[in-house]
Amino acid sequence: MPKLWNETIEEHRRAVRDTVLEVTAALVAEHGLRGVTMSRIAEGTGIGRATLYKYFPDVESIMTAWHERQISGHLQELAALRDRPGSPGERLTAVLEAYARIQHRRRGHDAEIGALLHRGEHIAHAEQHLRGFVGGLIAEGVAAGEVRDDVSPHELAAYCLHALGAAGGLESGAAVRRLVQVTLDGLRPAPA
Amino acid sequence: MPKLWNETIEEHRRAVRDTVLEVTAALVAEHGLRGVTMSRIAEGTGIGRATLYKYFPDVESIMTAWHERQISGHLQELAALRDRPGSPGERLTAVLEAYARIQHRRRGHDAEIGALLHRGEHIAHAEQHLRGFVGGLIAEGVAAGEVRDDVSPHELAAYCLHALGAAGGLESGAAVRRLVQVTLDGLRPAPA
Repeated sequence: MPKLWNETIEEHRRAVRDTVLEVTAALVAEHGLRGVTMSRIAEGTGIGRATLYKYFPDVESIMTAWHERQISGHLQELAALRDRPGSPGERLTAVLEAYARIQHRRRGHDAEIGALLHRGEHIAHAEQHLRGFVGGLIAEGVAAGEVRDDVSPHELAAYCLHALGAAGGLESGAAVRRLVQVTLDGLRPAPA
Repeated sequence: MPKLWNETIEEHRRAVRDTVLEVTAALVAEHGLRGVTMSRIAEGTGIGRATLYKYFPDVESIMTAWHERQISGHLQELAALRDRPGSPGERLTAVLEAYARIQHRRRGHDAEIGALLHRGEHIAHAEQHLRGFVGGLIAEGVAAGEVRDDVSPHELAAYCLHALGAAGGLESGAAVRRLVQVTLDGLRPAPA
């Protein structure tokens, strides 16, 4: 069955949008936020400037859209790890390791871009979502006797996610793994 | 002996500066950064506008100066706790508790002010200084057998300071103390 016209349009739009996000992110990574203009993006994507403006009003809005897409990709990756087979402790370890690696990859991001992107509401939502979901996994760990029960899962989730933020300043993957281990050690039940 | 003219001038300047910082911080806390003008600060301090401009070019620079003063006050407070008598573990606990309380007090800060103040270079310097000094205390703890020795003091300091950043989102002093305990548990030497 041939595709409906609307579906084709929709697919085309999504492809254009994705291209704009990719090209802009690459240009900003290379030249910094201030070094990238809409004209340059139009040139890099091969889309006319007038068309580009139908998608996004400015470079900042493109970077915000790019960042939202990155974040939802990360949340999906973490949710997939949570839903794998294994004990709560194993799945928690897998989720926290992946989260720490994501923080580590973000290191050296231009401070200017960081300040821009972290102002957005989508970040607050994503953080809340992530904290809820790590808290749920921790609660499963408590029920299984793998995680301490003297502090609420909600508070422990905040502890984990903040502690793993340190991965952004670490030099190596080995250091990131040590950080995850230290953080997990803080979750252990007190010896009986 | 009567004071030298220069000393009197210097004292007067410092007093004016301190007054401007206090009044501005109070106004910004009440009305937000955008709700405060240089005229309003002049009025609040009883200093003429022309004189105020001899001290600071704008509201942002006043808030930056205020924040620098806050930070150096915090660093002095933490250094005093570090230098008290006690085992390294006890002093580390005292320093980390005080740091967590500082983070906790900062909660609810206007995001706009936070973004402004955290862009400054003085923050990067203060964080580096703090990390070095907590790392030194952790190294003493390792030497005393009170802190794990399988991860470098430098990495453990980054872990602690990030983890305690979670205090900014906690509701109560009791939750802050639990966070400090969980964070310290991550530093414990592995059971022999």
